[in-house]
Amino acid sequence: MRVYDIIRKKRDKEELTKEEIEFFVDKYSKGEIPDYQASALLMAIYLNKMNKKETAYLTEAMMNSGEVMDLSAIKGVKVDKHSTGGVGDKTTITLAPLMAACGVPVAKMSGRGLGHTGGTVDKLEAIPGFSIEMTPDEFIKSVNDLKVAVCGQTASVAVADKKIYALRDVTATVDNISLIASSIMSKKLASGADAIVLDVKTGDGAFMKTLDDSFALAEEMVEIGTAMNRETIGIISDMDEPLGYAVGNSLEIIEAIEALKGRGPKDFMDLCETLGAYMLVSSKLVSSYEDGLIRIREAIKSGAALEKFKEFVANQGGNPDVAEDYSLLPQAKHIVEIKSDKTGFIDKIEAEAIGVSAMVLGAGRETKEDELDLSAGIVLKKKVGDFVNEGDTLAVMHFNREEKFEDAKRRFKDAYVITEEKAEPKKLIYGVVTKDGIEKF
Amino acid sequence: MRVYDIIRKKRDKEELTKEEIEFFVDKYSKGEIPDYQASALLMAIYLNKMNKKETAYLTEAMMNSGEVMDLSAIKGVKVDKHSTGGVGDKTTITLAPLMAACGVPVAKMSGRGLGHTGGTVDKLEAIPGFSIEMTPDEFIKSVNDLKVAVCGQTASVAVADKKIYALRDVTATVDNISLIASSIMSKKLASGADAIVLDVKTGDGAFMKTLDDSFALAEEMVEIGTAMNRETIGIISDMDEPLGYAVGNSLEIIEAIEALKGRGPKDFMDLCETLGAYMLVSSKLVSSYEDGLIRIREAIKSGAALEKFKEFVANQGGNPDVAEDYSLLPQAKHIVEIKSDKTGFIDKIEAEAIGVSAMVLGAGRETKEDELDLSAGIVLKKKVGDFVNEGDTLAVMHFNREEKFEDAKRRFKDAYVITEEKAEPKKLIYGVVTKDGIEKF
Repeated sequence: MRVYDIIRKKRDKEELTKEEIEFFVDKYSKGEIPDYQASALLMAIYLNKMNKKETAYLTEAMMNSGEVMDLSAIKGVKVDKHSTGGVGDKTTITLAPLMAACGVPVAKMSGRGLGHTGGTVDKLEAIPGFSIEMTPDEFIKSVNDLKVAVCGQTASVAVADKKIYALRDVTATVDNISLIASSIMSKKLASGADAIVLDVKTGDGAFMKTLDDSFALAEEMVEIGTAMNRETIGIISDMDEPLGYAVGNSLEIIEAIEALKGRGPKDFMDLCETLGAYMLVSSKLVSSYEDGLIRIREAIKSGAALEKFKEFVANQGGNPDVAEDYSLLPQAKHIVEIKSDKTGFIDKIEAEAIGVSAMVLGAGRETKEDELDLSAGIVLKKKVGDFVNEGDTLAVMHFNREEKFEDAKRRFKDAYVITEEKAEPKKLIYGVVTKDGIEKF
Repeated sequence: MRVYDIIRKKRDKEELTKEEIEFFVDKYSKGEIPDYQASALLMAIYLNKMNKKETAYLTEAMMNSGEVMDLSAIKGVKVDKHSTGGVGDKTTITLAPLMAACGVPVAKMSGRGLGHTGGTVDKLEAIPGFSIEMTPDEFIKSVNDLKVAVCGQTASVAVADKKIYALRDVTATVDNISLIASSIMSKKLASGADAIVLDVKTGDGAFMKTLDDSFALAEEMVEIGTAMNRETIGIISDMDEPLGYAVGNSLEIIEAIEALKGRGPKDFMDLCETLGAYMLVSSKLVSSYEDGLIRIREAIKSGAALEKFKEFVANQGGNPDVAEDYSLLPQAKHIVEIKSDKTGFIDKIEAEAIGVSAMVLGAGRETKEDELDLSAGIVLKKKVGDFVNEGDTLAVMHFNREEKFEDAKRRFKDAYVITEEKAEPKKLIYGVVTKDGIEKF
């Protein structure tokens, strides 16, 4: 078998066989296929697409390219949650202890952020002392004892995916449904969960800019998961404007804790409840979505969720007092209000531009080598649909890197569209995809 | 400017600007763009195509990426001929001295073969003592004195094209009209000729398998040449079966000399006359195609063409006596007749398979490092349309590498289709493309 012939076949819109896809994934991850052949193949896949069969083969081959975790020592139905990523997305921080408080074992492997803002791991590290370093035994014991642990994604999971993703990132071959679906699912399947709830973001700040593409991606992933005997549910949620108000690592920790106290922003609370209820259904701990919602609201109301958060933080070396005293989190030197230049209704806040603005302030990495400023970020004061007067505060910027402020502010302001008429309120959840089909809301 | 954005644009079917194409060609040839980004772009170009404007920009950028020859010291209208390559194509060996004998200055830069059989340079080196090494001054003096010289293509011509071609070769992005046209024309334009006659092969043994594609390629190249103020003519000629009877370096030299004596195979003689007559028209030495044919036939009949071949060979250190004594050329140890297994009319001889068979015997290179056996090859005894009885000789194989014989023979035999009914005779020349339009025959 020659990779040249595999490239030629996909170039000519032919279907690749299981053996050809396995050959490519295996040889490429071993360094036996050069990057320039892999990138030509990826562009051919991007433009000529893969069918569902090919996507499933690719997923399985990438899953098998690294370690496949065995979580069978953990009692109960392990449910993993994955978000395709967006600006202000701190759901894992809230959901991990919340689900644990509801009885779902949460064995979560998370990554650092490569995009505008930090990943879950970066955010958790804003908590003084918090560590994601755990041996597999410690990890399993923590989940059995506390029902929750978050560790860093080991480099040995889905090795081929890491290498392929890095190449896609520099060759404009990222946003293809088959490639995204196989990348996400290969990692999720290798991570050993029994069920998977996927939060597929849609809109300006997401990979998938259109609803059709977002549903298609969710369908593809649900199909792959189902074929691999994992109960898989995909939720399509809005990412046209940032989620919640806070963007930036330590600022998002605060918002996540507020949500555990029942005081989070409405859109963020709603999303946590929706994802959480589906996780509870997948875990078989409740028999309906509505029962899931009831249990979640109880866990928050009773304080069990916040208590679980503290236990979880303490168990991983972090200071649990941050839950009550936010000043223990990294604080920025400069806190500056950004005022509106206009009077009117906020029609649009481009999520991606807000993410880039926060990144410029230090909340995210522009290149892999960049160091994060965990205290930096943006807290919005107004969201889409709100009315503002000229001079009202749109947001507050937190930062230490003074020299970056003007650039960040310009990018921030460019993200806003303010109009005279109030726009139709947007949906937060557009639909759900399960193995039984698509339900659009 | 970032190459990422250029890849993304072409991926999204947008037109690239002159600046973007120049940026890519310049940075890639300097090694400032990695192969994996270049190959992703080439696959995007392959699949989403380039329009004529983009192709012209690419040609010019590649031409300017290396030395642009100045042949103004050569008197007269310099006419270059280029063939897109095929099996048994020895036209340059015949045409160079033939045109010189007719008064056309032939300043030819030729390459080695990378395909099944050797290139013009490899074939000429079958003549004992013949050298393609010349300084630019020697080259110009030879053309002024003798009207003919053939030197090796310097590495400094169209540097970017060489690098891009090598990458296309291993990423299945060769047979795209814009990429082929720009590759050929960048070298031709950099080689300094005033007029260019292109022999665009069509059929099984050619890059372009269909007539439509062949005409499209010719049109594209004629348009580029015309825009650069070079009179450019494209001839579409058959490459479904091998050209002439001989395939292999020293065997082709014999056939080329036979043609200069007026005794070449009919198809090969016809092609030389056609290309030659158009070259004479382009050189302004004759006023019509018919006058060109008359002059060519006179040059052969009078012995002037053969005489010019001897002068040309002697001038470049070769032994001119080969013209009369073919035993001075490299001789193979084994000469074996291949018999027909069937009785009937030859319906098809797959040119490419014959080329591969000859390559296996040693006539061509499988990889760049392979050494040629200049004596090896195949001489066909029958061609398409001929009747054979079972046991008749189809061809004679010349070789030294005994261990390769069975493989070569099997490939050779697989190339034949013998049927009961005689097929319609095929055309040799399908049409001509000039700046005034397409003429189909």
